[in-house]
Amino acid sequence: MAIVVSVLKEEQPHEKRVAIDPDVTKRLIKAGAKVLVERGAGVKSYYSDAAYEQAGAELVDRTKALSEGTVIAVVNRPSDETLKALTSGQVLIGLLNALIDPDKMQQLAAQKVSALSFELLPRTISRAQTMDVLSSQSSVAGYKAALVASDLYPKYFPMMITAAGTVKPAKVLVLGTGVAGLQAIGTAKRLGAVVSGYDVRPASKGEVESLGATFLTSSVSNGAGSGGYARALTAEETEKQQEELAGFIAENDVIITTAQVPGHKPPLMVPATSVDNAKPGTVFIDLAASDLGGNVAGSQPFETVTTDKQVMVVGASNLASELPHSASQLFAKNVQAVINAMLDDDGNIAIDPTDDVFSGLTATTAGEIVNARLREALNLQPLTKPEPASTADEPAETKGAE
Amino acid sequence: MAIVVSVLKEEQPHEKRVAIDPDVTKRLIKAGAKVLVERGAGVKSYYSDAAYEQAGAELVDRTKALSEGTVIAVVNRPSDETLKALTSGQVLIGLLNALIDPDKMQQLAAQKVSALSFELLPRTISRAQTMDVLSSQSSVAGYKAALVASDLYPKYFPMMITAAGTVKPAKVLVLGTGVAGLQAIGTAKRLGAVVSGYDVRPASKGEVESLGATFLTSSVSNGAGSGGYARALTAEETEKQQEELAGFIAENDVIITTAQVPGHKPPLMVPATSVDNAKPGTVFIDLAASDLGGNVAGSQPFETVTTDKQVMVVGASNLASELPHSASQLFAKNVQAVINAMLDDDGNIAIDPTDDVFSGLTATTAGEIVNARLREALNLQPLTKPEPASTADEPAETKGAE
Repeated sequence: MAIVVSVLKEEQPHEKRVAIDPDVTKRLIKAGAKVLVERGAGVKSYYSDAAYEQAGAELVDRTKALSEGTVIAVVNRPSDETLKALTSGQVLIGLLNALIDPDKMQQLAAQKVSALSFELLPRTISRAQTMDVLSSQSSVAGYKAALVASDLYPKYFPMMITAAGTVKPAKVLVLGTGVAGLQAIGTAKRLGAVVSGYDVRPASKGEVESLGATFLTSSVSNGAGSGGYARALTAEETEKQQEELAGFIAENDVIITTAQVPGHKPPLMVPATSVDNAKPGTVFIDLAASDLGGNVAGSQPFETVTTDKQVMVVGASNLASELPHSASQLFAKNVQAVINAMLDDDGNIAIDPTDDVFSGLTATTAGEIVNARLREALNLQPLTKPEPASTADEPAETKGAE
Repeated sequence: MAIVVSVLKEEQPHEKRVAIDPDVTKRLIKAGAKVLVERGAGVKSYYSDAAYEQAGAELVDRTKALSEGTVIAVVNRPSDETLKALTSGQVLIGLLNALIDPDKMQQLAAQKVSALSFELLPRTISRAQTMDVLSSQSSVAGYKAALVASDLYPKYFPMMITAAGTVKPAKVLVLGTGVAGLQAIGTAKRLGAVVSGYDVRPASKGEVESLGATFLTSSVSNGAGSGGYARALTAEETEKQQEELAGFIAENDVIITTAQVPGHKPPLMVPATSVDNAKPGTVFIDLAASDLGGNVAGSQPFETVTTDKQVMVVGASNLASELPHSASQLFAKNVQAVINAMLDDDGNIAIDPTDDVFSGLTATTAGEIVNARLREALNLQPLTKPEPASTADEPAETKGAE
């Protein structure tokens, strides 16, 4: 490996994670890379500068990290100022929000910077699983959602049998049983709650039941969409769904919502009436809370709202960041898998935009927008013929991204 | 039952519990009692005034609750002003801190108020177990300690096997394996941590191991004391203990301390050097934190201190109150058991100070200080001969309180 990997300190106020931890630092160095870590990059995730130094990294200031890195690893897309400082041939890896802000990717293309945006990863390809940041971070968020709920909830999660009598277990309902939902179910079960999981995709039944939870599904027609996600429902379907959910919600003490549809505003699954009708002490954890709204009426990103009826609504917009050490550890392993996959035999960067994984993951390389959905968002013609990578030895087939 | 039971709103700022919940309210009313609830008494534990009304209670102001109650139920000892308002024949039940402030009990004796202080309960008598507030509330505190720790700790508690690799489980050490410690061990185990429990009483081994945890004990001589508690160690023993504990502490990620010796300052088990040497992200939960100090150097009651080495020290002085709904539910059942036991066949109050449970529990009745330890604290002669209770039909034997 002849590359220099730079680890930047995150800029967003609520972000506690770091893209690469000391363990992956050590592995990269062992494989021949040089690692530059911006001072203090790991502090919020409990990785000290000393730990990086011990792993063999060089501690540097931001300017040096930006100018000398061949690969720049971030959790979130850096500020415009940082993006402008990048130069031709550098590779930026992180959650870059390529589809939400496609113009930023176009800007990076103009700078001839390669941008790999984890949201674009073709998640159903098995080779991509070790790179799947959305999956690893959702898993952390689901675990943390159950913990936050159990700590806010004013009653026991497990059934308790005491000398003075028995206390009933909490009833936990998880709406949306993707990676985050399943992890929330598993953790709530560990804590002894009575758990059910709701999903519009009937295929989730087996997974939910294998965790010992009850599966609830919708009488609304099959909502399975592409890439393993649920599809967006029609207005009429949404209304029907809210009605049937209202019954489930009223019976539960803790409701964890995880429904996201890529590229869409999160579906409102818990309307204001359901929040109003909930018992005092009920806890809603909205993992989809965002500035565009969330799954629960009234949820505010990064805030816990307590209604005048003593119902708590947690706007859990970035829960993975609240378990920052473990979340960063997994994020780092995902970044490492990408770095390993994009190097040629001599350890040089060789992004192959025709590779089935990289044709998805790559927003832009060699001055060109690569990802098909991103091209569409930017009104560019599809790339019709295989584009050999600049340093690849042989042309490869173009495959569908997902 | 011809009694009136009054439920007061708690006065201490950190107290969220209430002495009687709507369920016990209903049971008392069914048995013939009248229940008066001070407005808002249950709000902080998520029991609404409406819920008490629905259970059959009358919502009243504090003055009425105080003047009309035959039995006044509280969690903590009320303010001096409230104590002064009580009159001859009334019964006050709660955690009255009789031994810590014996003069208050003497004042109540002068007022001919009966005071039943849960700290005085002879806990080893099996008939007293349904009344054991210390046990029910310690159990809640132990559960909550593990939850608070898991939420503060920046890493996973369970081992996680993911596509990108495996994350090691957290190592949790519980110091002191009484009721709170065992519940903390059980809850940390539920969450998938690797748990060990330390106690100077070798008899704890079986209980700790039955929860799937590793038992650690002391080379310091057997520290079992009376009433199931550990005894206070000598200065030399304490030093030896701290040394051997330092090794255990350094190997763990979360340390929950629960060591209390009745009537003594809590023993310092984790000195400042152990806190200093802990890894960043280590969490200490000190259930013994008090104004007199706690088990962990630097713990502050009701506060979480983060050291400059990113170690968190939680002064968990009243954790039962942080699960207020369930804690109150159990507290109420304990109060109900006491009320049931102190009534005669006609449902009138008949505290028998010669009964083996009530001779302990009763700080004062009929103008006399009853509890032997309290008499000692007040330099009063022991009660030598059986004192028939005012309304008891036959004299009973005097038995040791514990």
